[in-house]
Amino acid sequence: MSVSVFDHPWLSALLGDAELARQFTIEAELRAMLEFEVALAMAEAELGFIPIDAAQAIATTAMSFQPDLAALAAGVARDGMVVPDWVRQLREAVGSSHGVHVHLGSTSQDVLDTSLVLRLRPALDTLAARLNAFDSRLAALSADHGTIAAMARTRMQRAVPITWADRIAAWRAPLARHQKRLQDLKPRLLVVQFGGPVGTLDKFGDKGPSVAAALASRLDLAVPASAWHSARDVLAEFAGWLSLVTGSLGKIGQDIALLAQNEVADVTVTGAGQSSAMHHKQNPVLAETLVTLARFNATQVAGMHHALVHEQERSGAAWTLEWMLLPQMVVATGVALARGLALLDALRINDKH
Amino acid sequence: MSVSVFDHPWLSALLGDAELARQFTIEAELRAMLEFEVALAMAEAELGFIPIDAAQAIATTAMSFQPDLAALAAGVARDGMVVPDWVRQLREAVGSSHGVHVHLGSTSQDVLDTSLVLRLRPALDTLAARLNAFDSRLAALSADHGTIAAMARTRMQRAVPITWADRIAAWRAPLARHQKRLQDLKPRLLVVQFGGPVGTLDKFGDKGPSVAAALASRLDLAVPASAWHSARDVLAEFAGWLSLVTGSLGKIGQDIALLAQNEVADVTVTGAGQSSAMHHKQNPVLAETLVTLARFNATQVAGMHHALVHEQERSGAAWTLEWMLLPQMVVATGVALARGLALLDALRINDKH
Amino acid sequence: MSVSVFDHPWLSALLGDAELARQFTIEAELRAMLEFEVALAMAEAELGFIPIDAAQAIATTAMSFQPDLAALAAGVARDGMVVPDWVRQLREAVGSSHGVHVHLGSTSQDVLDTSLVLRLRPALDTLAARLNAFDSRLAALSADHGTIAAMARTRMQRAVPITWADRIAAWRAPLARHQKRLQDLKPRLLVVQFGGPVGTLDKFGDKGPSVAAALASRLDLAVPASAWHSARDVLAEFAGWLSLVTGSLGKIGQDIALLAQNEVADVTVTGAGQSSAMHHKQNPVLAETLVTLARFNATQVAGMHHALVHEQERSGAAWTLEWMLLPQMVVATGVALARGLALLDALRINDKH
Amino acid sequence: MSVSVFDHPWLSALLGDAELARQFTIEAELRAMLEFEVALAMAEAELGFIPIDAAQAIATTAMSFQPDLAALAAGVARDGMVVPDWVRQLREAVGSSHGVHVHLGSTSQDVLDTSLVLRLRPALDTLAARLNAFDSRLAALSADHGTIAAMARTRMQRAVPITWADRIAAWRAPLARHQKRLQDLKPRLLVVQFGGPVGTLDKFGDKGPSVAAALASRLDLAVPASAWHSARDVLAEFAGWLSLVTGSLGKIGQDIALLAQNEVADVTVTGAGQSSAMHHKQNPVLAETLVTLARFNATQVAGMHHALVHEQERSGAAWTLEWMLLPQMVVATGVALARGLALLDALRINDKH
Repeated sequence: MSVSVFDHPWLSALLGDAELARQFTIEAELRAMLEFEVALAMAEAELGFIPIDAAQAIATTAMSFQPDLAALAAGVARDGMVVPDWVRQLREAVGSSHGVHVHLGSTSQDVLDTSLVLRLRPALDTLAARLNAFDSRLAALSADHGTIAAMARTRMQRAVPITWADRIAAWRAPLARHQKRLQDLKPRLLVVQFGGPVGTLDKFGDKGPSVAAALASRLDLAVPASAWHSARDVLAEFAGWLSLVTGSLGKIGQDIALLAQNEVADVTVTGAGQSSAMHHKQNPVLAETLVTLARFNATQVAGMHHALVHEQERSGAAWTLEWMLLPQMVVATGVALARGLALLDALRINDKH
Repeated sequence: MSVSVFDHPWLSALLGDAELARQFTIEAELRAMLEFEVALAMAEAELGFIPIDAAQAIATTAMSFQPDLAALAAGVARDGMVVPDWVRQLREAVGSSHGVHVHLGSTSQDVLDTSLVLRLRPALDTLAARLNAFDSRLAALSADHGTIAAMARTRMQRAVPITWADRIAAWRAPLARHQKRLQDLKPRLLVVQFGGPVGTLDKFGDKGPSVAAALASRLDLAVPASAWHSARDVLAEFAGWLSLVTGSLGKIGQDIALLAQNEVADVTVTGAGQSSAMHHKQNPVLAETLVTLARFNATQVAGMHHALVHEQERSGAAWTLEWMLLPQMVVATGVALARGLALLDALRINDKH
Repeated sequence: MSVSVFDHPWLSALLGDAELARQFTIEAELRAMLEFEVALAMAEAELGFIPIDAAQAIATTAMSFQPDLAALAAGVARDGMVVPDWVRQLREAVGSSHGVHVHLGSTSQDVLDTSLVLRLRPALDTLAARLNAFDSRLAALSADHGTIAAMARTRMQRAVPITWADRIAAWRAPLARHQKRLQDLKPRLLVVQFGGPVGTLDKFGDKGPSVAAALASRLDLAVPASAWHSARDVLAEFAGWLSLVTGSLGKIGQDIALLAQNEVADVTVTGAGQSSAMHHKQNPVLAETLVTLARFNATQVAGMHHALVHEQERSGAAWTLEWMLLPQMVVATGVALARGLALLDALRINDKH
Repeated sequence: MSVSVFDHPWLSALLGDAELARQFTIEAELRAMLEFEVALAMAEAELGFIPIDAAQAIATTAMSFQPDLAALAAGVARDGMVVPDWVRQLREAVGSSHGVHVHLGSTSQDVLDTSLVLRLRPALDTLAARLNAFDSRLAALSADHGTIAAMARTRMQRAVPITWADRIAAWRAPLARHQKRLQDLKPRLLVVQFGGPVGTLDKFGDKGPSVAAALASRLDLAVPASAWHSARDVLAEFAGWLSLVTGSLGKIGQDIALLAQNEVADVTVTGAGQSSAMHHKQNPVLAETLVTLARFNATQVAGMHHALVHEQERSGAAWTLEWMLLPQMVVATGVALARGLALLDALRINDKH
């Protein structure tokens, strides 16, 4: 099926992103969930909460565990999330003697949130690399064509002449800030979620922080000040960052679409799109796409902020809302950066003087 | 892939809807696009714009036409939409003598928007039927249990006693208004899109309205006052309707989640969800889901209103934004109604007196 | 103070609207609240619930009642709304024997929501009249200049020639639908709110509907199917209508800003704005303002839909959110229509052939 | 007038904030605008662009300059912003010989954006101090009552026991992150805006950066990498920060409203609000208000992100949208922190064991 453009057989050619979407396949989810449970078992064995044999049995089982997807789906329909049935299946697969040690002291949200973080980590790397490539491409464009005269336009009217170096510098300024923001954000985001049923690691007595530290260390994540089951500010901040990035690119796309108007013709977008009815047209599809994605993320970011009102020790309603919004925002941002780079590659600056 | 919960292998068990999602498969899209082209060819033949043989050849080809999906995807990446390449393929399939008559006087937006309307039509029927079923289930609940005493709560505090009949009447009142609104909206929504390249049917001289009427008649759609390529108010209105429906159900879901709190226990939600860590719990998952879907649609509706700022005779940017939002809103609404009905089936009203 | 542009000493010259803002002054609020209480007292006297002398005393007091505003503000800080303290003051003003009959069987929300409806009524008339004037101005523009050749532009590129009559027809099409929608909406919106403490008119036995009818009749409002304390769909629908209107005008504003670009110059906006630095510029300020207001309302409408999740028999949180959003949306719409008309007056279509 | 709750005579008692609103009065705006022009003149004199006598005349005039407000309003209606007419008036006040040196090389956006930053600076201090006070109050609450047993509730159902120290720790965790984010954000936000007509300081040859540095130094602001006329990411980031803060407080408010339910009674909110109809009620108005403000800001933040699509070298449309949204968000955040502190003061934790 293809309710979403990101999963659509042909729209995803414009609006999808295989590399980022890969982090939101069930293969990636299941792998990260297993990674969590194995690291947890190892950490718990290390600290004496479960037998080392059990931890090794869990690790061994994880290597080849293939859950019954239909049962998982039925579990989601009933429980609102996949973990209870998945843990049940994993315990069965591990077997009767050791299976009972799976997921000890943990809760669904620990698995799902940590799984999300583990998959956001490579996504962040991809986004940062693309942002860098996009910025570098702009730098090269400025180096190559920065001396070409341009006309500044304010409030949709011709203002006074500038150069393309000026224009590109204005486009680039926020990109450097986005990289800085990502560095600020990463230590807050790349943290383990581990709190147990109600966020207090109550099964571990005073050893809770030690288990959390051992778990995080095995996953190469940091340990947050406390479990963030109900404090979702970092995810909303991250959503904001995604929308800042697409907003900056949407501004560039809007500018290019305006500059490529026939009467203006300050730029040409080569390889531009065709019309089914008017063969003379060269539609700046990639530029428009950047605008679309900016407005898409600007819309979604509100939902992530509404999800901050996360009642009590865990809200099913607010949490599920994140699932509906955040993956789409991540992919939309990746798409914008990829299409943005293609747009810059297709951009020809016209020296009209 | 599964960036979206609606297309996700297991989350769709809670948040997906096979019946409505079917309208957003490529099979349904392609079928509706062909339906448009066949009806157009027939209408044009009827009015003498193309040979009747050509129209019949198009109709015959349409019965078995299977486009090259990879080429369609490449077309979308280039053109921003599927139509140019799809028309090219369809013309080839129809063959050299008649193929040239495919899509005559039409434009991409005519095909895609009409295809959307043709697929929204059964979706509206589904939604109306579900809304009716949901309302009837509430009526039955009131008939069966309406005399049970209830406690009204305002501003989160106990107010004064009411009955369950009172509460259910308050829940039902907006549902009747939603049905009325849908009746008001339908004549605006179930219309053909047909304007040609720039909305003026310029290929048909003064016969444009006649072709539009013949086309609409064959598709059993109405003819709007004018092509709506750039006037997207009806889609935004429809999005608003969808969000009104999910909002009303979200209110009911929120109420039930509050009533099902252990300390309140005015209702029991049977078959409620389990926790991976706390086996005594009965989580009112369906009730929470209604809240999630209400907030999801309330978020998206803003984007559909931003898409009203649709520049000039057609905006690629604003149009594409609709594609990203509206299908999800339709399915979210269907999901809310389906899960809402399941929630009512699971609801037990506790007579505590 | 002037946190809001609508109340700002100089920004309101562009973004404010004295005629519509008048409905949101405390003078108008207090007058409508008194209108409610007097009509209620009269209706209750008519049906024998309070002495006719009491009703007359209330009506007489209302003619000159001036509440202590500082006490009202203190009441809001404590109670979250103005009614409890205002009723207390009104009862005191009416005096000991009759004062007790003020507000009988009613609740704060009855007063405040009905007061809102009473003030929205003239606002609707203003909006409808302005919408009509705007549409008529477009019709005149088309009659006068419709034959001038224009260039259609799709996806920001020149498409094929049309006429200005075509363009204006596309601009006008949604306006007629907005008038129709307003007619559909009015019977749902212009209704009394009257439910008593928990929406059931419990103080009146089986005479509740009769009191409601008598009250509504005196206020020249309709009686809804039930009190809408917690069913806020009509207000969200109305917010959607406001945003549809500003969206349609925002599209026109965006088009005019694009058409007025120096290189395009299909139109001239006379009397356009100046720059503090570049005296040659003619900024299409009014056109930009329409875009701003469209995006403002498109943003706010989401909040009105979130307010549909109105918990239990009355939510303080969701209700208060409406107060923060809806008045601004009403005024923004009025501003858009007023500035839109001024923009059309300033518009010169250039015949470049 | 009082379209906005923030400027409303009685609603502002609950939803307004005199201290923060003070930064959005015209007195504060005019003062900051003058501060900019005086600092600019001094910087330009320092670097030899204008005579020192002119700079001193400007500074002297600024001390007592009272613009004609009606003329400013007329200027806004015409120019879309106040600066052109205000500069004209200021030049007249300075007088014929020196007046010409006012605003040299600057543009409207330089004045208005820098004025905003100058006024946000004390607002940030206020917000940070209130955030600190709120956090400290929570710390004290935990120190005093942290050992009281509490019941964790997940998905609206009783989970397992925790302590109040656990709950309060979860509430506090995001607050520390908010303080850290503010420290990250401040160097990006507290910068001068100075670019001249099109962002390039073209009037100053290669001395542009020196003038900017001298100007910034006199205003005690930093110098950004470049003028940010069209790169509005920092304002959107700041809006996101405001909404993160209100979101965290909204979560606490929601929790308290749930805990204060009669059947739950884990807390009592003393001094709670009254009903006009039900005198036994104690409405947790302050707790609800925090939820309202969270949803208000979550709604507005989307608009600030849409304003990132800021076309060309300056967009009137996108810029004006910021004016409509950001001041409200700042005040809403201040209100939430102030009411939040009052709520904590009114909170009594019930030890039910």
